Amino acid sequence: MPKLWNDTIASHREAVQEAVLDAAAAVVAERGLTGVTMAEVAQRAGVGRATLYKYFPDVESILTAWHQRQVGDHLRQLTEIWTNTGRLEAVLEAYAFICHEHPPSPGPAASLHRSEHVARGREHLVDFLAGLMTDVRDDVPAKELATYCVHALGAAGAVPSKAAVRRLVAVVLSGLRGEAGR
Amino acid sequence: MPKLWNDTIASHREAVQEAVLDAAAAVVAERGLTGVTMAEVAQRAGVGRATLYKYFPDVESILTAWHQRQVGDHLRQLTEIWTNTGRLEAVLEAYAFICHEHPPSPGPAASLHRSEHVARGREHLVDFLAGLMTDVRDDVPAKELATYCVHALGAAGAVPSKAAVRRLVAVVLSGLRGEAGR
Repeated sequence: MPKLWNDTIASHREAVQEAVLDAAAAVVAERGLTGVTMAEVAQRAGVGRATLYKYFPDVESILTAWHQRQVGDHLRQLTEIWTNTGRLEAVLEAYAFICHEHPPSPGPAASLHRSEHVARGREHLVDFLAGLMTDVRDDVPAKELATYCVHALGAAGAVPSKAAVRRLVAVVLSGLRGEAGR
Repeated sequence: MPKLWNDTIASHREAVQEAVLDAAAAVVAERGLTGVTMAEVAQRAGVGRATLYKYFPDVESILTAWHQRQVGDHLRQLTEIWTNTGRLEAVLEAYAFICHEHPPSPGPAASLHRSEHVARGREHLVDFLAGLMTDVRDDVPAKELATYCVHALGAAGAVPSKAAVRRLVAVVLSGLRGEAGR
């Protein structure tokens, strides 16, 4: 098969996948993670159910791919903030607001948040943050500090207000620096 | 029915339940959360399967009860440490080691860690810790600091050594105090 044709197929597959994930995201936004069905996603994505099943065997695999895409988006977002500002505070605050806006949901679908691909996503985040750990306390390895950040900032999903999220970031930063609060 | 008889029934029921949870704990320790079956638990607990089903309809409900008992045990342990030492550091370190020794497991059984009773357990822990938040920074409400502690110390499940757990506790304490690290 000529290369061009392969490219066309690849980009068509990608377009269908994106449409499916967008449709899944819309259903999740409306009904929560447990409200997603294959029929609904197929209809919203404008593909037949048979086609959908060729791409994804079940709802779980759609949600996993969707979550993976989301984690990737967040990581790109944080990288951009770091590139633009060079400020650790700005990156941590952005991550805290991501956690605040996407708290882990209870119930069966929450198993998503523990699956292996999520663990990998979290590892990427830890590695990324570990690389930003200059100008912090030097009695703790950078990777441990990054692990601390990711867990501690997860508390943003459990605090009641944006002001509380900002206070949390200040507390986490004091921990990182081991200096007097500002 | 005379009260004594009711007491006897109640204590018998409790003894069976305890035996079932102990048996479940043993199976979990050997095979992980997903390796638990009703037949195995009944056999280890020394009760018939019919009896077991009268107490617990399925493995999920056994694991929930077992986890609930564990969370209760941990909370009692922390309360005791607080009563004996009056030192927040000691309580936080003990909780960090609990997290280090019981990291959340991946896979389907992990949905346990997100279920409602776990959320309640975590709330009890936050409330308990919030009550110990004296001698800490006063620019952040005690409950938010406690929420921060519970999440941040959860990182102890992801660090490689006991020394790393102790470093984590030091970092969390700096965050709580907003002062220079000691």
